[in-house]
Amino acid sequence: MNELEQLRIRISDFAMQRDWNQFHSPKNLSMALIVEASELVEHFQWMSEKDSFSLPKDKLEEVGEELADILVYLVRIADQLDIDLSNATRKKIKSNEAKYPADMVRGSSKKYTEY
Amino acid sequence: MNELEQLRIRISDFAMQRDWNQFHSPKNLSMALIVEASELVEHFQWMSEKDSFSLPKDKLEEVGEELADILVYLVRIADQLDIDLSNATRKKIKSNEAKYPADMVRGSSKKYTEY
Amino acid sequence: MNELEQLRIRISDFAMQRDWNQFHSPKNLSMALIVEASELVEHFQWMSEKDSFSLPKDKLEEVGEELADILVYLVRIADQLDIDLSNATRKKIKSNEAKYPADMVRGSSKKYTEY
Amino acid sequence: MNELEQLRIRISDFAMQRDWNQFHSPKNLSMALIVEASELVEHFQWMSEKDSFSLPKDKLEEVGEELADILVYLVRIADQLDIDLSNATRKKIKSNEAKYPADMVRGSSKKYTEY
Repeated sequence: MNELEQLRIRISDFAMQRDWNQFHSPKNLSMALIVEASELVEHFQWMSEKDSFSLPKDKLEEVGEELADILVYLVRIADQLDIDLSNATRKKIKSNEAKYPADMVRGSSKKYTEY
Repeated sequence: MNELEQLRIRISDFAMQRDWNQFHSPKNLSMALIVEASELVEHFQWMSEKDSFSLPKDKLEEVGEELADILVYLVRIADQLDIDLSNATRKKIKSNEAKYPADMVRGSSKKYTEY
Repeated sequence: MNELEQLRIRISDFAMQRDWNQFHSPKNLSMALIVEASELVEHFQWMSEKDSFSLPKDKLEEVGEELADILVYLVRIADQLDIDLSNATRKKIKSNEAKYPADMVRGSSKKYTEY
Repeated sequence: MNELEQLRIRISDFAMQRDWNQFHSPKNLSMALIVEASELVEHFQWMSEKDSFSLPKDKLEEVGEELADILVYLVRIADQLDIDLSNATRKKIKSNEAKYPADMVRGSSKKYTEY
């Protein structure tokens, strides 16, 4: 069984055992997810880009926890909507590879629509 | 090889071939991630919780793409910081299971600090 | 002198006296602003829409502080970019009034592009 | 009449004429606000801090519109909750002035809790 599927089951069990499905509407979960995303942003808000590469060990630990929180809500919301997160992601990467041909966009951060 | 590790390699190659690592500081990636998270939120902002469970097919497709975008940036930022996303997530879930004992929190959305 | 202009001056003095302008790039301030916005979202994430209208007094106080934090960063970022926030807002409202004619959009939450 | 109060009335009329109060729960408005905040963040995500100070004219115009959108939702949510945004902001600034004494925090971006 693939990894995201294992996570899906474990997180679903977690919610069910706590009777939390009633709170886990996709709408609410999208809010919870962005709250976790902003806890990630908070770590970096006053930091230079350069410093953001080399976090002190305790900060790095905290950032790892924020990333985990985001993944948990991501897997949960996909589950509540019956979206296959693995498939959706592989499909999106393929589409990104087509939209941003390496030879055209090399070294540029412009949005693909500007090409 | 596990799935998140496969994604990590593929997304890393994608960035390298486009010479985009220069833009992919953890600081910048945290911004990109929250922008994608808010595109998810946008789908649900005027929708009832109930309706958010049963999206029309085209909306569902779009939401799947937003979820994929979030996962891509999540994997990328973990990679840039040398964080093992699988481990971090399993550790966090374990810690959540301890913080929110099923018997104490059943049916309540209060934060664990309030217990 | 108008109110937003008074706020602008007071907040600018506050930053200058603390030598904080060095951190207040528009990029960083946009991050700080969204972090405050998400603290607002956090108050409502597990709450029904109905309950979100009638907050208990201590929650209401906290929400008021989040709104204030957002306004402070909003005024600051406009200041750092020499944007006249009053003018920009009046202009935007006028444009919204034209984009969403009352007779066409009454009772609908569709985006104006769908009309 | 002060400026934020004028905005409050105008925006309230705007919503009422379109029968949009039904969508404007504080919960939904917090989502709409963070979506606008992230459109602001999007402008800066791949930009250096330095470049974020000197935007080209068309970008500056767009950023002004995002700031306006944020202010509109901020005023709206305060209105729906009967929060006096002017008072809340003046109170918060006063509290910030006390929490971050200029002599102690000069030139440092640490959070006040670390002092």
